[in-house]
Amino acid sequence: MFESMTKQYSINRRETRQIHIGNIAVGGGSPITIQSMTNTRTLDETRKQIRALVAAGCDIVRLAVPDTDTVAWIAPLEAEFSIPLIADIHFNYKLALAAIEAGIDGLRLNPGNIGGKQKVREVVAAAKERQLPIRIGVNAGSLGKEILNNYGVSPEAMVESALEHVRILEELNYPEMKISVKASSVSMTISAYRLLAKKVNYPLHLGVTEAGTVYSGTVKSAVGIGTLLAEGIGDTIRVSLCGDPVREIYAAQLILQSLGLRKGLEIIACPTCGRTVINVEALAEELEQRLKHLRHLPLQIAVMGCIVNGPGEAREADYGITGGNGEGLIFHKGEIVAKVKEAELINRLIQLITENQ
Amino acid sequence: MFESMTKQYSINRRETRQIHIGNIAVGGGSPITIQSMTNTRTLDETRKQIRALVAAGCDIVRLAVPDTDTVAWIAPLEAEFSIPLIADIHFNYKLALAAIEAGIDGLRLNPGNIGGKQKVREVVAAAKERQLPIRIGVNAGSLGKEILNNYGVSPEAMVESALEHVRILEELNYPEMKISVKASSVSMTISAYRLLAKKVNYPLHLGVTEAGTVYSGTVKSAVGIGTLLAEGIGDTIRVSLCGDPVREIYAAQLILQSLGLRKGLEIIACPTCGRTVINVEALAEELEQRLKHLRHLPLQIAVMGCIVNGPGEAREADYGITGGNGEGLIFHKGEIVAKVKEAELINRLIQLITENQ
Repeated sequence: MFESMTKQYSINRRETRQIHIGNIAVGGGSPITIQSMTNTRTLDETRKQIRALVAAGCDIVRLAVPDTDTVAWIAPLEAEFSIPLIADIHFNYKLALAAIEAGIDGLRLNPGNIGGKQKVREVVAAAKERQLPIRIGVNAGSLGKEILNNYGVSPEAMVESALEHVRILEELNYPEMKISVKASSVSMTISAYRLLAKKVNYPLHLGVTEAGTVYSGTVKSAVGIGTLLAEGIGDTIRVSLCGDPVREIYAAQLILQSLGLRKGLEIIACPTCGRTVINVEALAEELEQRLKHLRHLPLQIAVMGCIVNGPGEAREADYGITGGNGEGLIFHKGEIVAKVKEAELINRLIQLITENQ
Repeated sequence: MFESMTKQYSINRRETRQIHIGNIAVGGGSPITIQSMTNTRTLDETRKQIRALVAAGCDIVRLAVPDTDTVAWIAPLEAEFSIPLIADIHFNYKLALAAIEAGIDGLRLNPGNIGGKQKVREVVAAAKERQLPIRIGVNAGSLGKEILNNYGVSPEAMVESALEHVRILEELNYPEMKISVKASSVSMTISAYRLLAKKVNYPLHLGVTEAGTVYSGTVKSAVGIGTLLAEGIGDTIRVSLCGDPVREIYAAQLILQSLGLRKGLEIIACPTCGRTVINVEALAEELEQRLKHLRHLPLQIAVMGCIVNGPGEAREADYGITGGNGEGLIFHKGEIVAKVKEAELINRLIQLITENQ
C-alpha cells in the first residue's frame, strides 16, 4: 500500500533532565506540553478562563501573582482544577512562599531578583518539600544594567542572565528547573535558545514575547518556536498573543502538529489552480469549523480542487474529498469509498469519519 | 542609547548560483523574494488578481498554463505588468515553447516529464535565447513509480526525483534553474530541503504544499519555511493557502519580517497584565487594519497597555502609543511627542507616521 511507503520523520529531541509540574512531566523525552497564562482580574473570571483553556487542550496554566489578593485564589483554583498551575512572581519572595503554602504546582521566578541569598534559600527550601519546579524566565526587554553594559541586548546577554539565576539554584543543589530566554525579535529568540541549549541540560520553555496581534503574532511564534522545535530544542511552549489565551492554545497545537510532535486533525487543501472545479476554500473552512469537536483525532483530510489530481494527491491523507459538476467523491486510505451529490459531500464525510472512530 | 545596544542577528545564507526572472534576481545573495500563483479563470480576472498581488508586495507571479487558451493571456499580461511572470506547465512541451514565444519570464516545468530528450532540447534551446530560468518542482504527492519503489515517499525520494530533472538540464549545459521539493508534511519538507541544499548550489524555492485553510496553512508555512530560512536555506518563497492569493503575500511578508529578512511594518503589543488600562488588543488590531497600506514601511510600533511601563517598553520601537483615563500618549524614538485624547490616538499616530515619511 502507498500509505506504508510514507516514512515518518521524527525530530531528534535534545536530551534534558526531567521535571514534574503537578502530574505533568516536562523534558527527559516527555511529550512537548502547551502552556498559557490567564489575563483575568477576578477569581471568577480566572476560573472560567482556566476551564476554557483546559477544554482547548492546554496542559499547564500560569497565573500572575502580583499581590496577596491573588495568592488567595490559588487554594480554590487548585481545589477545582487538576491541570497544573504555576505562579508568576516577580521580586517578592513572600508571595512565592505564600503561593507554595497555598498549593501551587510550580513557580516562575528569577532567584537573582528576589532580594538575596537568604530569601532564595527560604523559597527553595519550601519548594523542595514538594519538589516544585522553578522556571527561570529571562526577557530581552528586562535585562540588568551590568549585563547590558557587558553584552548589549543580545542572545549572549540573555543566556548569561539565565545562567546567573541557574547558578544560584545549582549552588543550593536544586536542579528542579526549566529555563526560558524570550525576546520579541524572533531571530534573537532563536539564537538565545540555540546558545542556551548547548550550555545546560535543563528542560527549556519556548516562547517569543509580545508577539503581537493574533495573526502576525501566530506567524512570529510559529517561525520562532517552530524553528527551535525542528532543531530538537524545546520541552514546553507558550505562544504569546493579545487577547483571549484560548487562541494561544490553538496556535500552539498547530505548531506542534505541523512538526508531527502532536497528533490532531489536519485539513490539507490543494492551493487551487485553473483546473479547480469546486470551492476548495469554502469546503476546507466549513470542514474545519464542523470538525472542531474532533480536533484531537489524529486524522489528515485532503480537500482537492479537481478530479484529475484529486485521487493521486489525496492518497497520503486518511480521507480526501473532491468534486465537480455536482458530484463529489470521498476517498479513504487512497480508495474511492463514496460518490455523492456535491452538496452532501461534507455531511457524508463527517458521517464516515464518525462511523470509523 | 538603548537602541544602539541591540545587536542585529543576520542569518548566514547558503551560497547559491544567481538566476534572473525578468528583472528579479533569485539566489546568489539577492533578497529573498515572495511568489504567488493566480487561481482565476479569465484573462480579466487574472489581470485584476495580478494587480492586487503587485499592490500587496508580491515579487513574482506564477500562472497555470494548462492549454493554448491560457498561452494567449501571456502577451497581454506581459505587456501590462513589469512583475515577472512564470508559466506553470505540466507534460506539454508545446505549451512551454508557446509560452516562451509569448514572452513569459520563466518556466515551472519538470524536464523529465515532457516526453523525452528531443523535446527538452527544444524547450531549453528556446529558453536559452532569453536566459529564462526553469523551476524544477517536485511534490511528495506526485513522485514517479520507480522512485517510490526505491525510496517510498521520503525526502530522499523527493531529492532523487529533483536530481534526475537537474541532471537533464546539466547535460544540456543549462544551469538557469531553481528547485523546489514540497510536501504537505512540514517535517518532510524541511528534511527534503536540508538534504537538497547539501547536494546542489542552485537557488531554492521554498514552500509547503496544500498547506490548508488561511490560519492553519499559515502556521504550517511559517514553521516549514521559517525553519529553513532560519538555517540559511531558501532564496524565494511561496506560501500556499486556500482562496485569495493576496493572503499568501501577507503571510510570506510576516515570515520574512519575523526573521529580519525583510523590513516592514511591525506592531508589537504588550501581552497585557493587571495594570493594563487600555484595550491593547483592539488598538493593535485597528492599527494593523488602518496601516495596511503602509505595510512596506520598515517601522516598529509598540502598543503598550499602561503609562507605567509604556515609555520603557516602547523605547526600542520607532513609535509607541499608550493610554488611560481618556488620555493618550504617542512616543517617537523613545520620547513623548504628543498627548491627545484617547479617541484621537490612532488618527494622530497615523498622521505623524505619514508626515515623517
